[in-house]
Amino acid sequence: MKKVNVALIGYKFMGKAHSNAWIKAPLFFDLSLQPVKKVVCGRHAEPLREFANKWGWEEIETDWEKVVTRKDIDIIDISLPPHLHHDIAVAAAENGKHIFCEKPLALNYAQSKEMYEAAEKAGVVHYVNFNYRRCPAIGLAKQLIEEGKVGQIFHWRGAYLQSWIIDPNFPLTWHLRKEFAGGGPQWDLNSHSVDLARFLVGDIKKVMGMKTTFIKERPLPEETSVTTFKAAVQSQQKGEVTVDDAAFMIVEFQNGALGSFDSSRFATGRKNYNYFEIYGSKGSILFDLERMNELQYFSVDDPENVQGFRTIQVTESVHPYIAHWWPSGHIIGYEHEFVHAVSDFLNAIANNQKITPNFYDGMKAIEVLEAGLKSAESGKMIEI
Amino acid sequence: MKKVNVALIGYKFMGKAHSNAWIKAPLFFDLSLQPVKKVVCGRHAEPLREFANKWGWEEIETDWEKVVTRKDIDIIDISLPPHLHHDIAVAAAENGKHIFCEKPLALNYAQSKEMYEAAEKAGVVHYVNFNYRRCPAIGLAKQLIEEGKVGQIFHWRGAYLQSWIIDPNFPLTWHLRKEFAGGGPQWDLNSHSVDLARFLVGDIKKVMGMKTTFIKERPLPEETSVTTFKAAVQSQQKGEVTVDDAAFMIVEFQNGALGSFDSSRFATGRKNYNYFEIYGSKGSILFDLERMNELQYFSVDDPENVQGFRTIQVTESVHPYIAHWWPSGHIIGYEHEFVHAVSDFLNAIANNQKITPNFYDGMKAIEVLEAGLKSAESGKMIEI
Amino acid sequence: MKKVNVALIGYKFMGKAHSNAWIKAPLFFDLSLQPVKKVVCGRHAEPLREFANKWGWEEIETDWEKVVTRKDIDIIDISLPPHLHHDIAVAAAENGKHIFCEKPLALNYAQSKEMYEAAEKAGVVHYVNFNYRRCPAIGLAKQLIEEGKVGQIFHWRGAYLQSWIIDPNFPLTWHLRKEFAGGGPQWDLNSHSVDLARFLVGDIKKVMGMKTTFIKERPLPEETSVTTFKAAVQSQQKGEVTVDDAAFMIVEFQNGALGSFDSSRFATGRKNYNYFEIYGSKGSILFDLERMNELQYFSVDDPENVQGFRTIQVTESVHPYIAHWWPSGHIIGYEHEFVHAVSDFLNAIANNQKITPNFYDGMKAIEVLEAGLKSAESGKMIEI
Amino acid sequence: MKKVNVALIGYKFMGKAHSNAWIKAPLFFDLSLQPVKKVVCGRHAEPLREFANKWGWEEIETDWEKVVTRKDIDIIDISLPPHLHHDIAVAAAENGKHIFCEKPLALNYAQSKEMYEAAEKAGVVHYVNFNYRRCPAIGLAKQLIEEGKVGQIFHWRGAYLQSWIIDPNFPLTWHLRKEFAGGGPQWDLNSHSVDLARFLVGDIKKVMGMKTTFIKERPLPEETSVTTFKAAVQSQQKGEVTVDDAAFMIVEFQNGALGSFDSSRFATGRKNYNYFEIYGSKGSILFDLERMNELQYFSVDDPENVQGFRTIQVTESVHPYIAHWWPSGHIIGYEHEFVHAVSDFLNAIANNQKITPNFYDGMKAIEVLEAGLKSAESGKMIEI
Repeated sequence: MKKVNVALIGYKFMGKAHSNAWIKAPLFFDLSLQPVKKVVCGRHAEPLREFANKWGWEEIETDWEKVVTRKDIDIIDISLPPHLHHDIAVAAAENGKHIFCEKPLALNYAQSKEMYEAAEKAGVVHYVNFNYRRCPAIGLAKQLIEEGKVGQIFHWRGAYLQSWIIDPNFPLTWHLRKEFAGGGPQWDLNSHSVDLARFLVGDIKKVMGMKTTFIKERPLPEETSVTTFKAAVQSQQKGEVTVDDAAFMIVEFQNGALGSFDSSRFATGRKNYNYFEIYGSKGSILFDLERMNELQYFSVDDPENVQGFRTIQVTESVHPYIAHWWPSGHIIGYEHEFVHAVSDFLNAIANNQKITPNFYDGMKAIEVLEAGLKSAESGKMIEI
Repeated sequence: MKKVNVALIGYKFMGKAHSNAWIKAPLFFDLSLQPVKKVVCGRHAEPLREFANKWGWEEIETDWEKVVTRKDIDIIDISLPPHLHHDIAVAAAENGKHIFCEKPLALNYAQSKEMYEAAEKAGVVHYVNFNYRRCPAIGLAKQLIEEGKVGQIFHWRGAYLQSWIIDPNFPLTWHLRKEFAGGGPQWDLNSHSVDLARFLVGDIKKVMGMKTTFIKERPLPEETSVTTFKAAVQSQQKGEVTVDDAAFMIVEFQNGALGSFDSSRFATGRKNYNYFEIYGSKGSILFDLERMNELQYFSVDDPENVQGFRTIQVTESVHPYIAHWWPSGHIIGYEHEFVHAVSDFLNAIANNQKITPNFYDGMKAIEVLEAGLKSAESGKMIEI
Repeated sequence: MKKVNVALIGYKFMGKAHSNAWIKAPLFFDLSLQPVKKVVCGRHAEPLREFANKWGWEEIETDWEKVVTRKDIDIIDISLPPHLHHDIAVAAAENGKHIFCEKPLALNYAQSKEMYEAAEKAGVVHYVNFNYRRCPAIGLAKQLIEEGKVGQIFHWRGAYLQSWIIDPNFPLTWHLRKEFAGGGPQWDLNSHSVDLARFLVGDIKKVMGMKTTFIKERPLPEETSVTTFKAAVQSQQKGEVTVDDAAFMIVEFQNGALGSFDSSRFATGRKNYNYFEIYGSKGSILFDLERMNELQYFSVDDPENVQGFRTIQVTESVHPYIAHWWPSGHIIGYEHEFVHAVSDFLNAIANNQKITPNFYDGMKAIEVLEAGLKSAESGKMIEI
Repeated sequence: MKKVNVALIGYKFMGKAHSNAWIKAPLFFDLSLQPVKKVVCGRHAEPLREFANKWGWEEIETDWEKVVTRKDIDIIDISLPPHLHHDIAVAAAENGKHIFCEKPLALNYAQSKEMYEAAEKAGVVHYVNFNYRRCPAIGLAKQLIEEGKVGQIFHWRGAYLQSWIIDPNFPLTWHLRKEFAGGGPQWDLNSHSVDLARFLVGDIKKVMGMKTTFIKERPLPEETSVTTFKAAVQSQQKGEVTVDDAAFMIVEFQNGALGSFDSSRFATGRKNYNYFEIYGSKGSILFDLERMNELQYFSVDDPENVQGFRTIQVTESVHPYIAHWWPSGHIIGYEHEFVHAVSDFLNAIANNQKITPNFYDGMKAIEVLEAGLKSAESGKMIEI
């Protein structure tokens, strides 16, 4: 089988999740290309070496520019915070590399547009890792919608709620600074929700937004992987939070559906609660990431006296991706979505096809997110 | 025991629910006043007579003005659509009657303000029947919040979703005309949600809203209890829907909490889904009216490894109102909230005290709802 | 409308629930007979008088033998503990009274057989109040089974779990003495489950049982309504528990289905958890009394990729009994089942028809329960 | 790091699950031994070669006797149907190999006893893969029980329900023949439940059982991996099902708890429903394998008005095994339990310690299962 050489840039949470996916995809899926874990790139050689040994990356490199210009590299996998996506992705595109990039795509719409245009110009396969599209239950939701089982969509109700920064002593990590993260939950969480809404409902036309920052100053982190961080904050003790702690939006979709997006890092009790409801003229759909092996579906085609939301165990061979895993009723986890993404990404390269979501989708999501923040700042509805 | 004479005006859905409550309150609660079902008022003597016989109202009357001026009547119970509240309530107040009035209080803020001022001026006990405040689970939520178990509230997320008018052939009943109903789900459903949010979280400061009407014309109903209806519509065949089919809001509360309100009559699969989430620094609370005997509660005071949303069966004698009903674990239904309301209303009269929610609360809810519609129309955030 | 005079014997928990039902049935249902709350009977005149005044019973009587021989009484409503059912029911039958009797029907199979035979011989309408048959969700389950939507039934899995006597200081009330109660949860709780299993699955052929009593001695109650109680216990301080604290059974039904029944008063966290699962060749059904307005239903007729247990809100006018209550999505409670029972009972009298469950069903349930206890004592499977 | 050579015998469902675990354990856990995937063994060289290539096993072998006698092999991983466990395990033990063996341990108690004794005599580390013990939620349950949070246990209620053989045309695979499988769901499913009950509640003293076979003859499979199969069946067209389709038990534990075990392959709608409830004097626990990242826990230590079953997301770093995986709120799947098992097994070898569940536990589970079948056949309670 033809081999493709992968360079992974970044080796934290996402580096681990991506490495796992590069290993598992060939075991569970019939691929047309064999990925080779060629090189992993990071700034600190020592922990990087350890990571490479553990995860089976052949080489290490501390300078990303060397990586993206290497002739033998076919795929650049960007597993870094948002502020580092743009330059690497544009350079990778210019060097003809296929790009697998973490979400959200960039710090702002302008960056994301440049990334999209560079990738398109280069003719490479580009992918933004809105991984939840490849959760089997969401794949099933998409099928039902495409088969007309939901009918005309009236509503999207999305929520992405976490609770990890409620403690005022939680430090000012890079996630809380606009120059590194792009935004708070509006960027990190609502980007997922907006992508799923675009995937399942369609494009968004009008946006109103509100946001808030409950804790405006936080202690500096003892150490940080973001080197430019210390300079960015005013004092040695405390620094300003420059992103939202919570951001809510209401929207009108181009097809007339009315929608809402609630994102927060101040939702006590919610760990990684990515929940949505879709209501249509023929049926409705509910999804909860914390029960990601289930989809709830209501159909008006059922006899009236037995209508109800049915909890579908999306663990059967008739469901997207599942036949590759375990027998009936055996659930999969968060990481499996990454395996699906890597598998589809490799097949897209092999077949010289596009994959979605790609940089266009990454850009379109940011367009909506940016409109949400603008609306929150101006107190006015924003048309996209 | 001292008796008080009640006059019920209206004998449809709410007339039935209220009659049931006037009968049951003395059976299950120890009241200081004994209500006498003196007279029921409606426009059509024939069905009214039948209703009175069945439900034990001593007399019938077809002219509400006669009822509100009767010397022997102590309480006016207004179980009518919104457009009929104002005149009756003001007249009742001027005649010194205590008033038990259905929600939403009026067609608009101006009306509701006049009602509130008239009732206050008259010194009568006035109550607006946001009945869900007297659901035991919501009473428990209130207790937890007052005891500090939720801490600083960060978020309210409310939804009130139904699905009874999705069929385009559903006729243009009075609910779909602004002059009778005041609004669509924004009035009928969000009024409940806004009242609960005010009860549990506090007053609202800023509002952004969006609304939509999916079906703009509907066939006329074959018959209607609203006499002025036929004149109100243009043609004999079809009439214009003049209220929202769905209305969403995002808000900022005075205490800084960020909130959302999604109301719709186009949520396929939802019958009477009144759901809310409250997130605070110490705990969180979830409520679902379709499981109204349960409250979900998360506490950060639990040991870290066993934290989780607990499903409290609010059916125990330690819970609000429950000791009056059945033994442990036996659930109550929708109608019981009305019994609680009647019981508390009678005790307020007996003790010469105020009761909440009253016309002030009815007025404050409408203020928010009106701001939501204004925002939807202007595309601008409205400060209250 | 023709009137029928009712005599209620017993005025505690069940007396209250029955009185409420006699009041509400004529309000919400179209009856062919009008019940008159003629007389309530109990041993202590004082509290009885108070009860009668509150609930509208015209007269009181302290001697049940006088009540059952009164010419003007048409219906005897037995709302008493099991040890008092037999004599009253037999006497009532011999005097030609229709009988509405609480469950379990009697202390043992022999008693229940005499009651059944007496009632049949007298030709009166007899009913045993296994009230859950008239829960709308269970009515829907019955419909689905009768329509063949469940197919051949393979399994019944029933549990009835409570937790009110776990505290060793909970006193030795009559419920814990075999001569008054007949049994522990095997009698009180499994009687409900066995009746539902017979109703929905069919008759039982073979039984194996195990039982246990965790706390064998308890303090005597300070007072008790059961007059013969004091003599029944040995000491002044403590008395022996003579019934089971928990009783489990496994059974084979006549149709070949394999079933289980777990009943306990030692299930911490369960208040009144009456839960069952029915699995069939075409579909399956789950029911939870604490969510009695819901039924879960799985159908193999659904397309394979959307099969799942659907949560049916059994609150719609297409569902049994619901059209008499509130609009779509408004839940009912525990007490409503009693209203359904009274309504159907009166209609059975009016139409000179049988009603189920009747004394035959009460007897058949006890036959199974008795077999369960015998099996537990002998360590052998019992054939019925 | 010291290396250990692993030989995997069997390469179907379990071979895949085990291979995945041998690969992932070193990536996510800090091991003291490095497993080398030395050889995979099966009867058919062709598919075996393909499997070995995909999953990275260095060599293949078609004769298990050669494998277990190889000097360079440290670990024998038996991923085969039950009838093949005994001979391989005994031989492996006699050759001093550590043994990782699939469940149920053997066809019957006698076999399992020999296996246990052989392994003990050889002093090797032996493990039976009741994998659910290493589900983090069950690990948490164990912790809570050990900390006294559940108190005296009153009840175990276990169910393991599937539905894959309801179709009468489902062929007579080896699972349906006693000589290959040992039993039906009693062996395959109740073995898991009994192991969990022993793990969490304790040993079982008395057993009553019932079983049934709904479909007594089935078409022969077109092909089968079990070579001796064709001879075992009478006709060319149809063969007799010689195991149970469903098996229920009620039991008394040594500590006095009363328990139930319902296992079936005829539970329409259930895919892999492994569910249990544990009720104790201080708290209760509920677990559902299809929501394996959750544990429900009720505590009597909570204030009375907020007691309820809390749904713990067992996805936090404070929970067993989770810190090795993903951040807060990211769920894991079925396969992860195998990784935990491999990791603990390797550490047991490295530290020269026992691991549980081991062959003793495998034997004790079979003792109970066998008693259940004997009770079903004799109609008598069996003491263990």
